[in-house]
Amino acid sequence: MIKKTFFEERKTIKQVEESTSFAPKFDENGLIPVVTTDYKNGETLMQGYMNKEALQKTIELGEAIYYSRSRKTLWHKGKVSGLIQIIKEIRIDDDQDCVWLRVNVQGGSSCHVGYRSCFYRSVPFGKSVENKTKLVLKFTETEKVFDPEKVYKNSPNPTKL
Amino acid sequence: MIKKTFFEERKTIKQVEESTSFAPKFDENGLIPVVTTDYKNGETLMQGYMNKEALQKTIELGEAIYYSRSRKTLWHKGKVSGLIQIIKEIRIDDDQDCVWLRVNVQGGSSCHVGYRSCFYRSVPFGKSVENKTKLVLKFTETEKVFDPEKVYKNSPNPTKL
Repeated sequence: MIKKTFFEERKTIKQVEESTSFAPKFDENGLIPVVTTDYKNGETLMQGYMNKEALQKTIELGEAIYYSRSRKTLWHKGKVSGLIQIIKEIRIDDDQDCVWLRVNVQGGSSCHVGYRSCFYRSVPFGKSVENKTKLVLKFTETEKVFDPEKVYKNSPNPTKL
Repeated sequence: MIKKTFFEERKTIKQVEESTSFAPKFDENGLIPVVTTDYKNGETLMQGYMNKEALQKTIELGEAIYYSRSRKTLWHKGKVSGLIQIIKEIRIDDDQDCVWLRVNVQGGSSCHVGYRSCFYRSVPFGKSVENKTKLVLKFTETEKVFDPEKVYKNSPNPTKL
């Protein structure tokens, strides 16, 4: 339960877009998407979600706390793996329906598969895919930062098919 | 209608996370979230959504085509404003339910309010918000790149309360 809330009521487009009023929009599931990037090099590390409680606690603590859709619970990132995300800056977008976190990651990795970033594969596009019916992803990271089997042990894999 | 598709069936977690198979996951509304950052400085510009057709066309064209949830239609970013996003790299995340676009923006702006990035305000956090009940956003951009009233003329504002 949230005792207090930092969130203001959304009243006008001008208030939401052009003022200093903090009035984030949570979707029909009560969630707001969050983009998390590395403070030092700008790399996109992951994309997750927060509910009101997670966003409130993240702001208070200064460490990233997401809402896990697969586990249906708050998820203090790094509590199991040690890969805590220390927040350096929080931004909100124009219509206040997305949060951008700029973080330093303890341990230098933020992906449960073991890579530095969750976005460790690129997708071919443009002229190179003309007349193709199948795309082959390319790994942009070649070595894992940690061994997920050792770190997470018997925790279930969060990926859903 | 999509005649061909680049997307493979999602069969196993190993295939999705550890292989070169491109098998993106679209949510219950048929959408996948997209994070768009500036290729040159790494700044997060916007967060949007694509449906299958938008992602297929984006890959083929090499320019960002989103799905507008407010207008319920494909949205070739920049077709009205001239602020086309030229794709330099496309990444997919570990469980393939999020796309990261690295782009060069024609005109140097990607926000309908007129700023360079949609994330032009920061949210205070940590010690500075102790005992606060209201947060005051801080503008991180002080000047608009363009005047939205001149560029979009009578187009309706996409922000929903």
